[in-house]
Amino acid sequence: MSPPSRDDSPFLTGSRMGSMPLVEENLPIRRLEISDHKKGFVELLSQLTVCPPLSESEFQARFSEIANLGDSHYICVVEDPTTERIIGTGSVFIEKKFIRGGSKVGHVEDVVVAKSARGLHLGQRIVKHLVDHAKAAGCYKVVLACAPELREFYEKCGFVEKNVQMTVYF
Amino acid sequence: MSPPSRDDSPFLTGSRMGSMPLVEENLPIRRLEISDHKKGFVELLSQLTVCPPLSESEFQARFSEIANLGDSHYICVVEDPTTERIIGTGSVFIEKKFIRGGSKVGHVEDVVVAKSARGLHLGQRIVKHLVDHAKAAGCYKVVLACAPELREFYEKCGFVEKNVQMTVYF
Repeated sequence: MSPPSRDDSPFLTGSRMGSMPLVEENLPIRRLEISDHKKGFVELLSQLTVCPPLSESEFQARFSEIANLGDSHYICVVEDPTTERIIGTGSVFIEKKFIRGGSKVGHVEDVVVAKSARGLHLGQRIVKHLVDHAKAAGCYKVVLACAPELREFYEKCGFVEKNVQMTVYF
Repeated sequence: MSPPSRDDSPFLTGSRMGSMPLVEENLPIRRLEISDHKKGFVELLSQLTVCPPLSESEFQARFSEIANLGDSHYICVVEDPTTERIIGTGSVFIEKKFIRGGSKVGHVEDVVVAKSARGLHLGQRIVKHLVDHAKAAGCYKVVLACAPELREFYEKCGFVEKNVQMTVYF
């Protein structure tokens, strides 16, 4: 992606002391839209992990599969209104269970904020937004797996360390 | 649940030396069926975590929601052919992603073997079965979260420790 320069952004001119309320106002969190392919959504994910570009049709096919799940798989984004680029994202999917009287668990995945937009607490806002979504969907808990060095960040978001994550790669 | 007595089980009579192949043959792993409500499926889950009984209609409603997801949410069970009780279960759901060229991740959840049926490697067979399902569905990896004391069990199933799991409870 072509990272926006925060210094050129109109809502960050003047004193940085006043930037936080403006961030809240000018950077709403919204659901991923199909047009976000053109706004650098996939490029942003490449700051998180291996993420080669997707063609328009590949993106649309996956977008539709996820959209068909409705609120059970919710992907949110933050768009920089100046550059019209996606600068933050995160997802949560809702797993339906038989335990706990037929309860649900929210799984948070793929949270990333553009390098150029870090330090504005966007990550915390995105995680809180996803947790709120899961709570509203009736989940009894929300889980995520992260590298040990991100433990402190997620503790600030209200999470506590619970278990170990195990993986098989193919 | 009313635990089956392994000693009364016809395929475990005679020498225990010969019991493993018989276990493989007589305890196939199959998909959860709606009739498994009557076979102690929910009672088995109560050996894993908080799991109050579900009425027939509550079970059927949740069963249908999960069944509608097709192979994206697969729950398997093992039934004791003698007692017609469910003695093992596990689930995997397939998360569709935009990363890695539009790849998928399998999430293993709720693996439990009845106390009365432990020591027969049913757990390992169930986990392998779920991993195979995820691989066939095109996942690039399978993940799960477990208590640290289960690390060794999942290592035997081919998993490696990767990250920490963080949780918010409501």
